[in-house]
Amino acid sequence: MTDETLTPERILETAEEVLRRYGLSKTTVVDVARALRVSHGSIYRHFPSKAALQDAIAERWLARKSLPLIAIANEDGPATERLRRWLNLLSSTTRKNVLDDPELFATHKELANSARNVVRTHLDHLVEQITYIIRDGIAQGEFATDDPVVTARAVFAATTLFHDPAHVAAWSDPDLDATFDGVWSLILAGLSPRDIPHA
Amino acid sequence: MTDETLTPERILETAEEVLRRYGLSKTTVVDVARALRVSHGSIYRHFPSKAALQDAIAERWLARKSLPLIAIANEDGPATERLRRWLNLLSSTTRKNVLDDPELFATHKELANSARNVVRTHLDHLVEQITYIIRDGIAQGEFATDDPVVTARAVFAATTLFHDPAHVAAWSDPDLDATFDGVWSLILAGLSPRDIPHA
Repeated sequence: MTDETLTPERILETAEEVLRRYGLSKTTVVDVARALRVSHGSIYRHFPSKAALQDAIAERWLARKSLPLIAIANEDGPATERLRRWLNLLSSTTRKNVLDDPELFATHKELANSARNVVRTHLDHLVEQITYIIRDGIAQGEFATDDPVVTARAVFAATTLFHDPAHVAAWSDPDLDATFDGVWSLILAGLSPRDIPHA
Repeated sequence: MTDETLTPERILETAEEVLRRYGLSKTTVVDVARALRVSHGSIYRHFPSKAALQDAIAERWLARKSLPLIAIANEDGPATERLRRWLNLLSSTTRKNVLDDPELFATHKELANSARNVVRTHLDHLVEQITYIIRDGIAQGEFATDDPVVTARAVFAATTLFHDPAHVAAWSDPDLDATFDGVWSLILAGLSPRDIPHA
């Protein structure tokens, strides 16, 4: 690889592979440079420090995870169906990541611990996507809430068990889907406009 | 201490102290016996194995945690207010345990990992207490649900972020109380009887 063809994207791709192999603490910028057959100076031209490289890897990974969710948030169509599909996709993607490739997941977990600001921004973006769907639902007469942002935060919090990797042990519970349906009923009831009694 | 005054309760109390000092893996039944100045045979007369002793310590600790919750479940009075107070107490007790005495909490965490069946039973009991309050609420006309057990599981799941020690990092979020209020609104809306339109 020459410095001319060395794009940030190419560095991040290789860096993620190197991280997965050695773990975060043992990986150096020199390891990434070696895997790309460039000098470590070439890497530093794009990423001024290991911390900057880490943050960029985390951003890239989380953006990859967000993309199909953003697509659902931006669709037309009934907000209720989109919110349910969005929550299902968030849960299923996380579970797939954790269970299908435990090695990569371990890398992501280490990254998440060291790139806390990147993760916080990602979580804010997820709540913004829920807010967006809720506002759509209000405009379409499906939902009612005084404060879409607080409600979006509540929806995200109420589904923690299903999308937070901390709960991997709970995901093999045979009642999990029934419990999700139950939580979904609470969410839907909470979002539905109250019937206004006729005088 | 003589064998005559050596009650199971006395053993468990001392064993929890010993565990807290040495950690679960390093503690032996002999350590507990030494702390009580009895022979390890005296301990085995009450608890046939280290595993049995561990389970009993976990049961005692979780029963201690459950007691004030059971009291709320068994009260008379409006179910809505009791459910909210029950959820608040569960969250605040867990947070207090985790944040006030990290050493004891670390011991409890180790115990929970090795006494999984005891923990599972405890969680089932918590959901039963919610179910009990929900049934009360149905009888009093405050709540409506086709399946109080599934709804109770959903309420417990929806509040995971607030009462599961896995989320200790989230508890310092200044928005936490507002988010809890949001989740509580979802729960309450989900439990409220729907208005039946008048013909």
